[in-house]
Amino acid sequence: MWKEELERIRPVSQKWLRAAYERLDSLTKPRKSLGVLEELAARVAAIREDNMPPLLQKEVFVFAGDHGVTAEGISPYPQEVTALMVQNFLKGGACINVLARAAGAEVRIVDIGMKHDLGEPEGLIGRNVRRGTRNMAEGPAMTAEETHAAMDVGVEMAEAAWRRGTLITATGEMGIGNTTPSAALFAALLPAPPAEVTGRGTGLDDEGLRHKIGVVARAMEVNRGALSDPFSALMAVGGLEIAGICGLCIGAAARRMAVVVDGFISTAAALVAMRLNPAVTDYLFFSHLSSEKGHGAFFEREKVRPMLKLDLRLGEGTGALLGMQLIENSLRIYREMATFEEVGITPGA
Amino acid sequence: MWKEELERIRPVSQKWLRAAYERLDSLTKPRKSLGVLEELAARVAAIREDNMPPLLQKEVFVFAGDHGVTAEGISPYPQEVTALMVQNFLKGGACINVLARAAGAEVRIVDIGMKHDLGEPEGLIGRNVRRGTRNMAEGPAMTAEETHAAMDVGVEMAEAAWRRGTLITATGEMGIGNTTPSAALFAALLPAPPAEVTGRGTGLDDEGLRHKIGVVARAMEVNRGALSDPFSALMAVGGLEIAGICGLCIGAAARRMAVVVDGFISTAAALVAMRLNPAVTDYLFFSHLSSEKGHGAFFEREKVRPMLKLDLRLGEGTGALLGMQLIENSLRIYREMATFEEVGITPGA
Repeated sequence: MWKEELERIRPVSQKWLRAAYERLDSLTKPRKSLGVLEELAARVAAIREDNMPPLLQKEVFVFAGDHGVTAEGISPYPQEVTALMVQNFLKGGACINVLARAAGAEVRIVDIGMKHDLGEPEGLIGRNVRRGTRNMAEGPAMTAEETHAAMDVGVEMAEAAWRRGTLITATGEMGIGNTTPSAALFAALLPAPPAEVTGRGTGLDDEGLRHKIGVVARAMEVNRGALSDPFSALMAVGGLEIAGICGLCIGAAARRMAVVVDGFISTAAALVAMRLNPAVTDYLFFSHLSSEKGHGAFFEREKVRPMLKLDLRLGEGTGALLGMQLIENSLRIYREMATFEEVGITPGA
Repeated sequence: MWKEELERIRPVSQKWLRAAYERLDSLTKPRKSLGVLEELAARVAAIREDNMPPLLQKEVFVFAGDHGVTAEGISPYPQEVTALMVQNFLKGGACINVLARAAGAEVRIVDIGMKHDLGEPEGLIGRNVRRGTRNMAEGPAMTAEETHAAMDVGVEMAEAAWRRGTLITATGEMGIGNTTPSAALFAALLPAPPAEVTGRGTGLDDEGLRHKIGVVARAMEVNRGALSDPFSALMAVGGLEIAGICGLCIGAAARRMAVVVDGFISTAAALVAMRLNPAVTDYLFFSHLSSEKGHGAFFEREKVRPMLKLDLRLGEGTGALLGMQLIENSLRIYREMATFEEVGITPGA
């Protein structure tokens, strides 16, 4: 399923981009004086191929999955916390819920690979592919079938959002240990040395960090045959929620929906999609530079720019929701500001 | 009036700051994982001396004033644009109106020094101190009396906002040519060489920029006796809207209200207030690093950090309104997130 979607993705039209900037230049402000906000609005207009894009219905997808590599002691939190936090999401008490209410976005929680079976509580989208990945430090984290299935869950979520009229999606995740496979994906796909892209996650000390870098290096050594191809790298050193986010990026881009990408883990998933088809990049809005070490290496090498730098390292989709608010502001400006002509000013510089 | 207010300002209480971080550390997220958002919420709680600060009523004050120094040809726009843009504000068509609607903030437009008399249109707060400043390249821009009066208008606005129940204010301005006096104030009070703090404003070319730097240098030479003291520097090379913003910062801090500071011009005004009483700084939230050259010199030397860097250079208060949204998000997080105890997780790192 995701492969056909991938082939449908086209780069964003330069013609529509130019038309959007014409509109922006007619508004009562010096040309380009709204900087990044103008870039956001112009790109959404071009993605939508609509010179007056409506305020967009918004959804954030939080994919939850567990990681066999936690057996290596790479996180200070036990795996059970994934399930406890998902229950917190379902009750509306987590940061993602608070920010979604503030942004007017719907939150969709997807069990794509949680170890713990929560049953079928209201609000949880049950798409469990496998109850946690295998330990990537000992072999591939997933089989090819599991990877396909998890990516297809992401595509299915994009399709469902599109059917509901949503035109801007955001990525989020919950999974104890998931900065470790993300670091391995950055190391494999940027590429970069493990030490450059491995950080402290939720709070490792120096020794914990050294150990984690060693685990990433070991996972890359054990899976070295798989790392040159983006799909097999995702299979070998990724995770189920990471594959879900990758699928969401693909399914959204195929439908000309904007995707606001959260922090370190979501970016690793987006990178897999970008390596599968570089045209995906035109649909991605990177919300923030996380304080997780290694996130900066992505932005430097890929020549894209995050909207925010607020030292966030929470994940869930929290940075993406702040980014969504900026995009909404940019669209309001694009739609609602008066033109020079309307107020009788001759544009200066 | 502003002098008595200045003396009432006290540094923000460390005790209340610690109490706010205790609350933040109890919420379901790794410690400090919300970075700058935690700092914002904690500082608002400490400013209010309230461990559960309410979502705050918000107002942005846009002070409009004209500048005699435009006679030197330092802006590509004619002075009439100040009046045309103020009419645009009153009709709700400017960027500040759009962002205020998005942020749920009231916009107050104050004629503090416009050259053009608009009469008494609905929505314009008429406090004109003088119909534009004198040309600072030939002598002091204002008299001491005018400077006092303009600062007192700012204090009056803070007082009025406080009586209406507003607890967070933002600064904004409109005044063709006002990056030039702002650059002179930075040069005098940071201090810094004029070339380091003078930028292209609404869009000067290289030759225009060289000329503008020369005008700033000339204003500093002509007024050199006045530049060592913050009040007389404001009088000599400032402006009426800049004095108004300075007064607003003082009046707000005296009432333990937060002030979200907009870009280059608002920061120059805030710097005057900071030099008059360093305790003011605790009440200021610098919203963004403008793309106007010289703004960065302020942040480097004063060791404060802007929330956003979006290459904005519009002024009006637009960056401050984006900053207000971030503060509101931070307060929602502070108030609404579940605690570890509530969800049954043992805090890790």
